Amino acid sequence: MKIVIISPDHDTRAWEDAMWDENQDLEIEIYPDDTEREKTDFILAWNPPEGVFKHYPNLKVVASMGAGIRHLTKNKSLHAEVTVTKIEDDQLIEDLQYFVLTSVLNYCRNIPYYVIQQQQKNWNRISYHRPKETHVGVLGLGNIGLPVAQLLEKNNFKVSGWSNSEKEIENIDTFAGRDQLPNFLKELDVMVCLLPLTDDTEDILNKEVFNQLPEGAYLINVGRGSHLVESDLLEAIEEGTLSGAALDVFQDEPLPKDHPFWENEKITITPHTASVTQPSSVAHQILENYKNLKQGKELKHTVSRKKGY
Amino acid sequence: MKIVIISPDHDTRAWEDAMWDENQDLEIEIYPDDTEREKTDFILAWNPPEGVFKHYPNLKVVASMGAGIRHLTKNKSLHAEVTVTKIEDDQLIEDLQYFVLTSVLNYCRNIPYYVIQQQQKNWNRISYHRPKETHVGVLGLGNIGLPVAQLLEKNNFKVSGWSNSEKEIENIDTFAGRDQLPNFLKELDVMVCLLPLTDDTEDILNKEVFNQLPEGAYLINVGRGSHLVESDLLEAIEEGTLSGAALDVFQDEPLPKDHPFWENEKITITPHTASVTQPSSVAHQILENYKNLKQGKELKHTVSRKKGY
Ligand SMILES: NC(=O)c1ccc[n+]([C@@H]2O[C@H](COP(=O)([O-])OP(=O)(O)OC[C@H]3O[C@@H](n4cnc5c(N)ncnc54)[C@H](OP(=O)(O)O)[C@@H]3O)[C@@H](O)[C@H]2O)c1
Ligand SMILES: NC(=O)c1ccc[n+]([C@@H]2O[C@H](COP(=O)([O-])OP(=O)(O)OC[C@H]3O[C@@H](n4cnc5c(N)ncnc54)[C@H](OP(=O)(O)O)[C@@H]3O)[C@@H](O)[C@H]2O)c1
Repeated sequence: MKIVIISPDHDTRAWEDAMWDENQDLEIEIYPDDTEREKTDFILAWNPPEGVFKHYPNLKVVASMGAGIRHLTKNKSLHAEVTVTKIEDDQLIEDLQYFVLTSVLNYCRNIPYYVIQQQQKNWNRISYHRPKETHVGVLGLGNIGLPVAQLLEKNNFKVSGWSNSEKEIENIDTFAGRDQLPNFLKELDVMVCLLPLTDDTEDILNKEVFNQLPEGAYLINVGRGSHLVESDLLEAIEEGTLSGAALDVFQDEPLPKDHPFWENEKITITPHTASVTQPSSVAHQILENYKNLKQGKELKHTVSRKKGY
Repeated sequence: MKIVIISPDHDTRAWEDAMWDENQDLEIEIYPDDTEREKTDFILAWNPPEGVFKHYPNLKVVASMGAGIRHLTKNKSLHAEVTVTKIEDDQLIEDLQYFVLTSVLNYCRNIPYYVIQQQQKNWNRISYHRPKETHVGVLGLGNIGLPVAQLLEKNNFKVSGWSNSEKEIENIDTFAGRDQLPNFLKELDVMVCLLPLTDDTEDILNKEVFNQLPEGAYLINVGRGSHLVESDLLEAIEEGTLSGAALDVFQDEPLPKDHPFWENEKITITPHTASVTQPSSVAHQILENYKNLKQGKELKHTVSRKKGY
């Protein structure tokens, strides 16, 4: 049994250890030092270099090391027949749930404002928002978006959700597709992006969408950096269309030192920390899929190459 | 019907308006311009001047304008027979619930750290705490402390509570009295003070108590400023006994400009904003108590002068 890891930007040792803990017979090779590429059928990858997959003529499965998979599917050398799988992890979902709850409550309680006030030694009270008076809209009602919306609902927020296909969810108003997007947006105080990155959702957080929100709405992006048109956000904050934003993901990560977001007091930056996938908690599902492949069984956590998520 | 308001530090107009909205026949007089003091039997007060009650020989009831009542009972001129009432308000409870949840989640997610990092343009990830791995202890399980503990429990935190009398609460470990305080403290990651201020609880957040917590525990004080020995907190943070604190209440409010708390990066200051009592939401209960007095009925929301809360 051999798995190849392609993740040139990251130290892969924690992944190797986690997989060996699961299976001591496993052979792990790390790109670019892997051998006999024509025999490789299963690759675990994060941000693989463009063109790399052409070296693997018999590749059957590429497993993403995270929940996102666009870093794989945008690679032109990845054949359309190759199965792509993503991470689905209860711990990751729970981490995202509480990260978003934290961000929404901080908006309600003006915490970033008070932290900055403290540095100026200012004792100035501003009014707060109550959960029951705060309407939060979640873009994306998938593995992560749905439980996030439900945790907010459980904490008294008014919650709406938007997805591709129509859904019925208890106590949550749902909207589907581009046609219903304006109706979804028009009453939100807070908009949370938990979409996957696809051709359809790239740049979706843009001026046109911001203008459909009530004035002074707040943005939380925990999807991907490329969902957001960064210059549109700066303009919307400048003009008061949005009152601020909490961003965990960026076009370029780490966020470059000269980026204007750093100095914007209405933007709260966290360093892609909503959830940090622990290899030890997901190695099992990757090896299980590897076994499924070998035994001709159906794979789990596959994505639709056609839909792109 | 006449009510006298004694609150020299504050603009009382919102209170007057709220009470008139409830009862247009009501006469309201504001100390020190009130008349016929020997006839006054009902006073609404916040921080009354020492000695003021000796002018009211027929006083029967003093109603506090907030949840705390020590500003009344510590006044030496307040006769032991006078009934003291406090505010009990569902909105106040809910506001405190979500304020404490926000503070605990911010501890878990290192938000104050990230806000300061952002100003230094630093992209540095530190590990977070999960609710299910975070043990929160609530001091005081009264009108406010109990629902606060329950909201934390509902959000997956491990929760313990401490009170005067023994209690049984679903999914919450309870401890009572000074004897059980060490056992309560010894496993907490976060300690939340929601005690009333009394002779017994003044200065309770002190070095000796901090030393009984696991090293690096975190303090949230939403009780009263005088629960905390401020110099002991600074020392405990300096020595690493505590990892930090979120404080909403202080010995002196507004916190003086030269106070060392302002510049301490491990302390998060909010300007007594956990809950702001809205006169419109509580005027009704005050007037109801006034009617109860006139009709010889039992008053609501009274405090025990003996226990001091
Ligand atoms: N910040 C972080 O640390 C972090 C960590 C993990 C994941 N993430 C991000 O979270 C994303 C979501 O993950 P997931 O596992 O929940 O994905 P998922 O299960 O695939 O769900 C995607 C959701 O988005 C909806 N959707 C997709 N395209 C859409 C479109 N064009 N218009 C409207 N709705 C659309 C889908 O609608 P249908 O239900 O109708 O198909 C579905 O509800 C990931 O892709 C990743 O980018 C971020
Ligand atoms: N920061 C803010 O904006 C804000 C707003 C409102 C209130 N507060 C503060 O919150 C405090 C609590 O209000 P509340 O309405 O919940 O009070 P409460 O209903 O009177 O409850 C007090 C609780 O503290 C416990 N207690 C009292 N003395 C104790 C002692 N010596 N040892 C152990 N436990 C003791 C009581 O135990 P038993 O149950 O056994 O009697 C009870 O559980 C107020 O007094 C006020 O200071 C702050």
